[in-house]
Amino acid sequence: MEKQLGVWIIGIYGEVASATILGAKAISAGFSGTTGLVTEIPALKELQLLSLSGLVFGGHDIRKGSIFKSIYDYIKNNRVFDIEQLSTLRPDIEKIENSVCPGSVSNCGEALTAIADNMLLQKKESLYETASRISNDILKFKRTNNLASVIVINLASAEQEASELPPASLDELHAEMQKPVSGRITASMIYAYAAFMNGFPYINFTPSAGSSSAALQEFAISQGVPHYGNDAKTGETLIKTVLAPMFVQRNLEVMSWEGYNLLGNSDGRILQHEEHKKAKLRHKGSVLPGILGYTPHSGVSIDYVPSLGDWKTAWDFIHFKGFLDTPMSIQFIWQGCDSMLAAPLVLDLIRMAEFASRNGEKGLLTHLACFFKNPIGIDEHWFSRQHELLIKYVNKHAKRSKDE
Amino acid sequence: MEKQLGVWIIGIYGEVASATILGAKAISAGFSGTTGLVTEIPALKELQLLSLSGLVFGGHDIRKGSIFKSIYDYIKNNRVFDIEQLSTLRPDIEKIENSVCPGSVSNCGEALTAIADNMLLQKKESLYETASRISNDILKFKRTNNLASVIVINLASAEQEASELPPASLDELHAEMQKPVSGRITASMIYAYAAFMNGFPYINFTPSAGSSSAALQEFAISQGVPHYGNDAKTGETLIKTVLAPMFVQRNLEVMSWEGYNLLGNSDGRILQHEEHKKAKLRHKGSVLPGILGYTPHSGVSIDYVPSLGDWKTAWDFIHFKGFLDTPMSIQFIWQGCDSMLAAPLVLDLIRMAEFASRNGEKGLLTHLACFFKNPIGIDEHWFSRQHELLIKYVNKHAKRSKDE
Amino acid sequence: MEKQLGVWIIGIYGEVASATILGAKAISAGFSGTTGLVTEIPALKELQLLSLSGLVFGGHDIRKGSIFKSIYDYIKNNRVFDIEQLSTLRPDIEKIENSVCPGSVSNCGEALTAIADNMLLQKKESLYETASRISNDILKFKRTNNLASVIVINLASAEQEASELPPASLDELHAEMQKPVSGRITASMIYAYAAFMNGFPYINFTPSAGSSSAALQEFAISQGVPHYGNDAKTGETLIKTVLAPMFVQRNLEVMSWEGYNLLGNSDGRILQHEEHKKAKLRHKGSVLPGILGYTPHSGVSIDYVPSLGDWKTAWDFIHFKGFLDTPMSIQFIWQGCDSMLAAPLVLDLIRMAEFASRNGEKGLLTHLACFFKNPIGIDEHWFSRQHELLIKYVNKHAKRSKDE
Amino acid sequence: MEKQLGVWIIGIYGEVASATILGAKAISAGFSGTTGLVTEIPALKELQLLSLSGLVFGGHDIRKGSIFKSIYDYIKNNRVFDIEQLSTLRPDIEKIENSVCPGSVSNCGEALTAIADNMLLQKKESLYETASRISNDILKFKRTNNLASVIVINLASAEQEASELPPASLDELHAEMQKPVSGRITASMIYAYAAFMNGFPYINFTPSAGSSSAALQEFAISQGVPHYGNDAKTGETLIKTVLAPMFVQRNLEVMSWEGYNLLGNSDGRILQHEEHKKAKLRHKGSVLPGILGYTPHSGVSIDYVPSLGDWKTAWDFIHFKGFLDTPMSIQFIWQGCDSMLAAPLVLDLIRMAEFASRNGEKGLLTHLACFFKNPIGIDEHWFSRQHELLIKYVNKHAKRSKDE
Repeated sequence: MEKQLGVWIIGIYGEVASATILGAKAISAGFSGTTGLVTEIPALKELQLLSLSGLVFGGHDIRKGSIFKSIYDYIKNNRVFDIEQLSTLRPDIEKIENSVCPGSVSNCGEALTAIADNMLLQKKESLYETASRISNDILKFKRTNNLASVIVINLASAEQEASELPPASLDELHAEMQKPVSGRITASMIYAYAAFMNGFPYINFTPSAGSSSAALQEFAISQGVPHYGNDAKTGETLIKTVLAPMFVQRNLEVMSWEGYNLLGNSDGRILQHEEHKKAKLRHKGSVLPGILGYTPHSGVSIDYVPSLGDWKTAWDFIHFKGFLDTPMSIQFIWQGCDSMLAAPLVLDLIRMAEFASRNGEKGLLTHLACFFKNPIGIDEHWFSRQHELLIKYVNKHAKRSKDE
Repeated sequence: MEKQLGVWIIGIYGEVASATILGAKAISAGFSGTTGLVTEIPALKELQLLSLSGLVFGGHDIRKGSIFKSIYDYIKNNRVFDIEQLSTLRPDIEKIENSVCPGSVSNCGEALTAIADNMLLQKKESLYETASRISNDILKFKRTNNLASVIVINLASAEQEASELPPASLDELHAEMQKPVSGRITASMIYAYAAFMNGFPYINFTPSAGSSSAALQEFAISQGVPHYGNDAKTGETLIKTVLAPMFVQRNLEVMSWEGYNLLGNSDGRILQHEEHKKAKLRHKGSVLPGILGYTPHSGVSIDYVPSLGDWKTAWDFIHFKGFLDTPMSIQFIWQGCDSMLAAPLVLDLIRMAEFASRNGEKGLLTHLACFFKNPIGIDEHWFSRQHELLIKYVNKHAKRSKDE
Repeated sequence: MEKQLGVWIIGIYGEVASATILGAKAISAGFSGTTGLVTEIPALKELQLLSLSGLVFGGHDIRKGSIFKSIYDYIKNNRVFDIEQLSTLRPDIEKIENSVCPGSVSNCGEALTAIADNMLLQKKESLYETASRISNDILKFKRTNNLASVIVINLASAEQEASELPPASLDELHAEMQKPVSGRITASMIYAYAAFMNGFPYINFTPSAGSSSAALQEFAISQGVPHYGNDAKTGETLIKTVLAPMFVQRNLEVMSWEGYNLLGNSDGRILQHEEHKKAKLRHKGSVLPGILGYTPHSGVSIDYVPSLGDWKTAWDFIHFKGFLDTPMSIQFIWQGCDSMLAAPLVLDLIRMAEFASRNGEKGLLTHLACFFKNPIGIDEHWFSRQHELLIKYVNKHAKRSKDE
Repeated sequence: MEKQLGVWIIGIYGEVASATILGAKAISAGFSGTTGLVTEIPALKELQLLSLSGLVFGGHDIRKGSIFKSIYDYIKNNRVFDIEQLSTLRPDIEKIENSVCPGSVSNCGEALTAIADNMLLQKKESLYETASRISNDILKFKRTNNLASVIVINLASAEQEASELPPASLDELHAEMQKPVSGRITASMIYAYAAFMNGFPYINFTPSAGSSSAALQEFAISQGVPHYGNDAKTGETLIKTVLAPMFVQRNLEVMSWEGYNLLGNSDGRILQHEEHKKAKLRHKGSVLPGILGYTPHSGVSIDYVPSLGDWKTAWDFIHFKGFLDTPMSIQFIWQGCDSMLAAPLVLDLIRMAEFASRNGEKGLLTHLACFFKNPIGIDEHWFSRQHELLIKYVNKHAKRSKDE
């Protein structure tokens, strides 16, 4: 029997993790089609990507919890999926619980520390010891489940921004890791470090720093590991990067682009805190100048509206100047279930990371830019061009596999 | 002194013509920048396109009227441009009045016949005689103004659809033109015929048939004339062709896409009539299947709301299925001044047609697909790809001109 | 033990009936609060209204079906309520099935005939025989369940408009009822006739004619029965009657008010048919002139969008003129679950009709105007004033009951 | 010849003042109808209100400026009114310039101090001396123009909130006024004080404190002067107070009501500053609990979007719970020209204040509650009920004048 692939989720009790695990199980059981999975569009089906039924889940979280309960609550609260079908999937989901380990809140910010398990807060470790502990958790998961490999993916809530610049080189980083705590290193970086220690691919789905620093990029190369991020592009920003190029192509001048995001999930709760919101808003805000070539008046706000749960509503107001300086406008209203938008991209990224790893690729996977608000190492925000990069990569590999 | 280019507008008393003439004069006078002109984006500036100040206007209309009054009323009614600057442009605009001739309402539909000048309705001519009259009007315009060439552009209101299929070959067409009236031929085709008789490029900015029939395409080739159409893509459909590809790229299934257009200009008044609305709605409706590869539930309506004048408001509701069949939605609201969206594209198409003609190109100018809802002779509705076609054409010609 | 109240629903397999029965059972079981019930606001709680747990359901339908399955499907398709709680209510709901009888499609229109049970179509009866059959069905229901009384409420799909004017007097009506079929009488009128024969109150929740004709009003008075209608005001029109008075109060001139309704329930399916849509749109359209005192440009459309199911989305665009003739606008977007908006009003009307009947009132219950788009016998469309009528009625009765 | 009424505007170079003066002049000249004026609805025409042509304008400002230029720029920037008609009104408008005096920035906040005239900042006066200076300016205006009386109305930008509570009694206030500067008194209070010194009615159109403190209310009574405020209800809040009662009347539970206001006028520019925004947002925010009887999750934001100028766009998202706890939503989008919404209310309030004064009324004019976001001295936010208060007042006075 073919070996299976491990998926190690940072933040496994969160809503995106719930939707991801539920999705993989439901699709494998034939309860749902593959809508939403980019890796299932015809162009990508040419690649020999792993089947979803070959995924084995485990992960870290900073809270105590239950994966089944998280999924059950998610379905009930957000009126998605079919609760009656969930019972069939229950035994399979409950098995995952054995592969959950306590994570790290190192330098994450108060909003996260506040919800973390007490035991975790009392751990006295150097950052390196934390990384080793995490690394060992993942290795044990691999061994226990007899897995071919493991992909590490960060789905945890947005950390606060580090107060100091990250280590600029791998040597500096190694040195800094000996400290018990560092203003230059956050938990998402420690997880990336741990993944690289093991030679496992790492994807940062969140606005946190993850593997984006020069030092960690260096580490990935030296370990021969592929990795990518940051901050998956699921909704309002996706539309932004689809729509904004039109203004360039039609020579219309964007005067103002104001975006308002309302959501009530735990992501929203954490993002209430200014220091956690910062990186998120910077990613959302930077795409416009990158596309337009100038900086219009622009604001992005995220407001926590508990009654909405995971159902994000975004309103964007775009005020632009047309012929003879005539002011006109476009507004759009986006109503989507946030984690249901994220989850298929998580599965896509796992499959693409596994494929890259299997093909011996290492370092930044810039062909995955279309999945991210802030694609590391590439200055391309036009969505259609980002998508072209993916298609080119696929075509190259599909051709090669046919040639063989 | 360099010779100037004639622009012969079918429907010269209409709102799009008003905005076009006003725009050309205002920009030439330095009263406004070139926002909205695609031919002014950096990529296209490499081509040696004609300056707007080199354009001389004339045209046909089926109504009596006054160009200056049309423009004056347009500005007042729609609260655009600066009425105080208009006085400076007045003498130059009034001169155009000498180059206006009565047009043709042949088989146009009752809504148009109803507003036509009586004298015009009493003309007893064969279709060929009408074409010759039109052709002579244009030639006289060219001669009188000592013009290098003339571009004919159809900006008239949407005709009804012809009740019978158009002639299938040039021979059939020539034969049919001898009749005094034909259910197979509409006025927009006669204008195209007349343009081709003179060897003048023809652009059909409207949903009318224009030069799209096989017979007229044949005539264009045999006369060595470039031409293109149909139905300029200015607003709601533009957004549609920008947004719809995203659903394919993200594997999201569009279940329903309902579009509502409210406008109060004369275009709207004519489109109240079912038989005039038909072609328009077909063009608007056909883009979705062309992009998505399947046909979602979809409706497009155009309602005449007089108080809006030229300010079109469109609301589109897009209901789509995401991961695990979760229904989500996007709505957009588009508020634009219709003729101010159209006018810069008119000027762009004139410049591009002149450039093609100068370069000896003939037949369909498919590289201009991005300007049209229903680009003749090419099956490409993704806006980003249509734009790529234009850029490729430009790059080829820009390179060539550098090589020379 | 106190006797219970019968609720006889015309259209008992429909979605509004499903939501009504589900609601009554769920609230009685303590699964849900009373949100949405007007009869539960503090002002109305002073009345001694019947408890929801005292309602016994039965009814007619023209289709074969199953009440439990209708409710189950309704919950699943529209992602409302909690499917897990439904199982507890199941036995109680399934009991209702014994009290369902075949209805009448007399002169209802093709869209309804098309979905009717074949057996029903083959019945050869005079209209009077149909009324007697219906009347007997209801009497048997009362007897079998030992009920105090029965309220008849019409929740069936909108009929087509009758092609001829209804009988003008009770004598004419009685005579017309002897015919096997009549262009002047539709099924909703026959049901009202049957209810009045028995002396049972009748509520017309639909745009169909129901009891609104002079002849049936006369019959109600002579039988001493209270009744009311037409066309419950649940969503877009509700907002209209709340918002439109403001334009009068602030002396702002509505130039255009365009409303678009998208829905995918069986109501929407029937309303696709022009002849069924007519009455509905007339009711929706007539409120504006009634409130504003003049007739602005106005359109109301209802489009069937299957993917929406019972989730109606309405967009209204209001273009108004302010100070110095400055044009401004308000748009609203209404997203509600149609039958969940209707069901509490059904329960409210049953309770209020029972109360009126118990108090010996007969004829039109105009104090219920706030529940209807087209309140019979009263020319008041301002919602706040309609609500005042209700409150005055309640205060009068609450005072009286205290005085006693 | 009948004596005319003086209108003394605080903030006479501002946009609301521009629109007010323009409106009074344009309507008097017959250039425009009276749309937007509440005092012109049939019910109010029964009162013998002053004609607009009988108003003579003057006022204070903290900036140097020109009334004609303000109006000219306002029309140009916001594409309202007819610039060609303005020239006719010019001489009449320019005459007002003679009646403009430098105002006070006492304790107004830095955003206002920053734009004030330097000379003004250098004045060394006690608050009482400032009040006396202002009072004398107004008296001189009255004398010079031989006016029957003067109404003082505050249209200046929102001040910062005072850091300390205002004087609690008239004695305390008089004492505090001897100081050169006081944390308890802001400029808007000084203007009210000055108006009351002269026995002139005072209207506070702004969110600033104005005459709302107990001490100033006491002063108004002792001087026999009518006055009212605060914060005129022109747009988004107006809709809120029209719409929110419906949720109570229909027993629907508002879970969240989130409002976003975008505007680019000088009001918007000042409101960028947190300390100036506070009072405004408190007024906007307090209406919901006042109407609903409970406090839903609710946010109101005001963002400065310069390209919009005076054209405010507001988006409100209302998430509510219906029957069986089903979540539904209403959104509205309001696009109005802010000062054009305010100006007619300014004229209404001037006329109503003059009427009250003429009728010997003094103290709070609570029948004007419908004009304000935060109507002083009355706890009524339902717009329909506020309007009823006005109508009752009018009916009482109209009847009395008929009786006489």
